Amino acid sequence: MPLDLGAKGSCHIGGNVATNAGGLRLLRYGSLRGTVLGLEVVLADGTILNCLTSLRKDNTGYDLKQLFIGSEGTLGIITAVSVLCPRKPKSVNLAFLGCSGFSQVLKTFTTCKGMLGEILSAYEFMDNECMQLVERHLNLTNPVAESPFYVLIETSGSNSAHDEEKLSHFLEHVMASNLVIEGTLASEDKKIKALWALRERITEALTCDGCVYKYDICLPVERIYDLVTEMRTRLGKGAKNVVGYGHLGDGNLHLNITTESYSQSLLDAIEPYVYEWTSKYRGSISAEHGLGFKKKHYIHYSKPEKAVFLMQQFKSMLDPKGILNPYKTLPAKVI
Amino acid sequence: MPLDLGAKGSCHIGGNVATNAGGLRLLRYGSLRGTVLGLEVVLADGTILNCLTSLRKDNTGYDLKQLFIGSEGTLGIITAVSVLCPRKPKSVNLAFLGCSGFSQVLKTFTTCKGMLGEILSAYEFMDNECMQLVERHLNLTNPVAESPFYVLIETSGSNSAHDEEKLSHFLEHVMASNLVIEGTLASEDKKIKALWALRERITEALTCDGCVYKYDICLPVERIYDLVTEMRTRLGKGAKNVVGYGHLGDGNLHLNITTESYSQSLLDAIEPYVYEWTSKYRGSISAEHGLGFKKKHYIHYSKPEKAVFLMQQFKSMLDPKGILNPYKTLPAKVI
Repeated sequence: MPLDLGAKGSCHIGGNVATNAGGLRLLRYGSLRGTVLGLEVVLADGTILNCLTSLRKDNTGYDLKQLFIGSEGTLGIITAVSVLCPRKPKSVNLAFLGCSGFSQVLKTFTTCKGMLGEILSAYEFMDNECMQLVERHLNLTNPVAESPFYVLIETSGSNSAHDEEKLSHFLEHVMASNLVIEGTLASEDKKIKALWALRERITEALTCDGCVYKYDICLPVERIYDLVTEMRTRLGKGAKNVVGYGHLGDGNLHLNITTESYSQSLLDAIEPYVYEWTSKYRGSISAEHGLGFKKKHYIHYSKPEKAVFLMQQFKSMLDPKGILNPYKTLPAKVI
Repeated sequence: MPLDLGAKGSCHIGGNVATNAGGLRLLRYGSLRGTVLGLEVVLADGTILNCLTSLRKDNTGYDLKQLFIGSEGTLGIITAVSVLCPRKPKSVNLAFLGCSGFSQVLKTFTTCKGMLGEILSAYEFMDNECMQLVERHLNLTNPVAESPFYVLIETSGSNSAHDEEKLSHFLEHVMASNLVIEGTLASEDKKIKALWALRERITEALTCDGCVYKYDICLPVERIYDLVTEMRTRLGKGAKNVVGYGHLGDGNLHLNITTESYSQSLLDAIEPYVYEWTSKYRGSISAEHGLGFKKKHYIHYSKPEKAVFLMQQFKSMLDPKGILNPYKTLPAKVI
């Protein structure tokens, strides 16, 4: 399956497609817009739209299925999906590394793209604040020396000897260049799962930390952590924790802020500042989580007026009575 | 550039995106629907729709750019494109192989996916009739023993020693298993270009052969050559040459039929038979060439009525006066 994400134990494929879920391996296998080959959708008038095919190429007319991918159920209900699946890799390796700063995280990524090339399947990062949360609330153990940042690199390939050689050359290089303080490698399933847990269970640890304000931002990769640093300064003691982690390879930051209990004044200090900041650097205010109910009014920070107007036209055309997942994704049409 | 195609010397990127061009490396890098990150489009009313971004992830509202990809200029004019480009591979290798039958071509493909895995970047095939045409009309030389089928396999990777090792293990295996009669390898640019020319210049050789009837079909891969064989039997001496080649890795067949001069009776023997045959096996009657002017009335062979109706609604909404590339892609709306 080309898609993998933290919610894999509970999510459904229809929801994944309806929200255009991104996840941990988009870096390698691309987005669902490329890997979904066909869809069956029930439209608002009850008719079934059959775009279900398993062909890799089809240029007969407009690609209707794309409208439903990522439309959060507001244009139709997805009832069947055909997905292009790559071969299961014969060899999977994981490296968990500690870095002394964010510029080292970025340089390690550039080095990694060159030296691991086609076997790189994930490049995730988390800050030390995230590590402290999973240690404190979930009793997980940091496998390397305490560092300001941690990076999780996964390789998936067809030849284990080649993959291990590439990975060890890469590690020698980043250690010798002082990009990485300390690292650990895993190739057995049990250790791989334990290392992934440090990254995948951050959401769970945050829930244990109090009230969570969650943001899912896409930015040019060199800007990705600046937002966390600025937010930390801006909120000061008003926040309990301000943490950053995410899919660095895709420029996708999960910014999370916790407090002991809900605070309207804290929320006012975060929003719309976080959206304005993202918009200033031409980022997306929702990289992979969609807009739903809470963020529909913020769409203008990432999309021009004309685009929103066209989306509203599509909605009116496909769901004239507004019965499909109402009040979500788009702001109400100004008549 | 993730897209490569025979027309690379003369095509334009706006046209590539407007026709959702597939080409030689879709197998590795996926379709433009995944690699195009942003578009700027001029709409029928003259307004500019700015969906130009270089972010890898953005789930704020519907993905409007997808409607314009592959719509053949009928919904808007693409004026700027942002494309996600992979790193240039450090090592490129090519194998040109002769196979004794089509089932050997298919088995070689399955073997190749397993043994070359992540470094496989193209898997093309051509029949011996194609080879004879490029030999006769373009004076190219067959580099291997004459065979019923030829396969061109390209690898692109980050480590030349690893890539060459994978490729030579693969070759030893397919020769020992009698899947391949004879093969030749290339890693220098000049020889690589010469081998690619055999495949890329088939279109040119066909033009020298007389009047050409061209079909661009996507089918389940195991069915892909049956259409050529059936057509050869059906047309008998009515056709000069019936040849098949294409992007086997994507199930994409280019079926071409030549005659000395245009023949309406031959055309009637080909169409709609070729479309009916394709439809029976749930294939696409246009894998990558679009529908344009000539094939718009055949859309029903690959798309259900409801889908065509929706496409016509999109067209009416975005281009109410029908001024954008008129009379193309879709049949006129039945009122």
